Amino acid sequence: MTDSRDPFFSVERRVEFRDTDAAGIVHFSAFFPMMESAEHALLRHVGLQVMHPLEDGTHLTWPRVSASCDYFGAARFEEILTIVPTVIHLGTKSVRYSFDIRRGVDEIARGQFATVCCVLSPAGKLHSVPIPDEIRSALRRAMVA
Amino acid sequence: MTDSRDPFFSVERRVEFRDTDAAGIVHFSAFFPMMESAEHALLRHVGLQVMHPLEDGTHLTWPRVSASCDYFGAARFEEILTIVPTVIHLGTKSVRYSFDIRRGVDEIARGQFATVCCVLSPAGKLHSVPIPDEIRSALRRAMVA
Amino acid sequence: MTDSRDPFFSVERRVEFRDTDAAGIVHFSAFFPMMESAEHALLRHVGLQVMHPLEDGTHLTWPRVSASCDYFGAARFEEILTIVPTVIHLGTKSVRYSFDIRRGVDEIARGQFATVCCVLSPAGKLHSVPIPDEIRSALRRAMVA
Amino acid sequence: MTDSRDPFFSVERRVEFRDTDAAGIVHFSAFFPMMESAEHALLRHVGLQVMHPLEDGTHLTWPRVSASCDYFGAARFEEILTIVPTVIHLGTKSVRYSFDIRRGVDEIARGQFATVCCVLSPAGKLHSVPIPDEIRSALRRAMVA
Repeated sequence: MTDSRDPFFSVERRVEFRDTDAAGIVHFSAFFPMMESAEHALLRHVGLQVMHPLEDGTHLTWPRVSASCDYFGAARFEEILTIVPTVIHLGTKSVRYSFDIRRGVDEIARGQFATVCCVLSPAGKLHSVPIPDEIRSALRRAMVA
Repeated sequence: MTDSRDPFFSVERRVEFRDTDAAGIVHFSAFFPMMESAEHALLRHVGLQVMHPLEDGTHLTWPRVSASCDYFGAARFEEILTIVPTVIHLGTKSVRYSFDIRRGVDEIARGQFATVCCVLSPAGKLHSVPIPDEIRSALRRAMVA
Repeated sequence: MTDSRDPFFSVERRVEFRDTDAAGIVHFSAFFPMMESAEHALLRHVGLQVMHPLEDGTHLTWPRVSASCDYFGAARFEEILTIVPTVIHLGTKSVRYSFDIRRGVDEIARGQFATVCCVLSPAGKLHSVPIPDEIRSALRRAMVA
Repeated sequence: MTDSRDPFFSVERRVEFRDTDAAGIVHFSAFFPMMESAEHALLRHVGLQVMHPLEDGTHLTWPRVSASCDYFGAARFEEILTIVPTVIHLGTKSVRYSFDIRRGVDEIARGQFATVCCVLSPAGKLHSVPIPDEIRSALRRAMVA
């Protein structure tokens, strides 16, 4: 780990066979669901629900408007990866996350998501809304100091 | 093709890189979405909608109660596979499909799905219903003679 | 749980968002990689390597010749599933596994794999071989009493 | 299409059920394998092999060093998407692609990949090399005018 600070929160996961491809390594696209799962684990860790129920029967949810990943090394079947999700920006309606993915001290990949706070109607329509205060407070705990 | 009859309907698809695994071949699980897509193509071919809208705003859909596949050979990146979906049994509420997956004359895999005709409510609940007559007639066209 | 015996070994996993589909439930195909990961965890638990290195630089591996799953209920995002993998038959060259997938006391799905012991050459060729004695002994520990 | 020029090359694909998630739309990660498949189709279109065999028995391949996608709209089951892959930069050892993903005139997503020309040894090691001249010439045909 190049960073001497302890991360606020991290998850470990073992590379599964379905994550790999015919080049013998984790397929580049497989890191995106791993990062999303780490985001969801972070939300649970700060006491938030990924699908947050509202009083009128709708839900708040967080569709992504962008996702990116830089790859520094290859990961292989059965290796254990550590994923550190962090809130790096908290806007009025949006949250930006970064994800560090390491295998021991080796940095394998680094990704970012930009997500927007949206109401999901029962009919499946999404529209963006300001992040409610209690959610904002919880997300602030997941920010880099 | 070991069968001298022309199939009623078939689809071709090229193996994509994400279908493969670190053994260098198509992952066994990747054949299941391929078969499901062939089932959906067959439904469209006989004039049916996969999500069939009903007058009351609900939909008919076809959850699977079983899925199986036998593997006879390996398929590799960029190979072109032919998938032949067939209705092999039409019950009161259920439909059973078989799928032959070939690469040229080589049989790669053979699968089966058992699906049940269900109403999907807007709240996401499923309950089984008899297959409506006009849908039954269309599916009969997809049966082996 | 309909079975009063404690399983020899089980794994827990939380349903991830990528496991779900537009019907709001875990896609039927997503249970297959879950079962394979439980098989691999079982192999590690009895001291075996999924890719077992041989002295001549090749590896033993376990391609599947069949896979099947019966579905009894739906699983949803963030639910925690318990998967019990068991060796149910040990042949000269083959191993058959069953997998019980539960959410608490509810049985969600039950699957089976038939796998064959194969040598994987560096060129990616597979040929079946009798299961070596020390591997057979380890697998016997994973059988139902 | 907001662009009046005809693209050099495009692929169409129908959204499959496994591409969707419990929000009822294509999962954000599912666009990455779609873009990769469009890249591979572009390579074939200009006469290149994705895994280019070299005289010494090794292969040239194109691991990605970064991948990103911006999302402008949602895509749903069975919709037909048009993907336009373009070479936007050709370096000594690297190629950068962009991908426009549309449903009719609606722009759904826009992505980029940075890939590096590498030799893949039989042992699975990758090391970067300058892009050979005949491959460079072929890729130049896939560049925006």
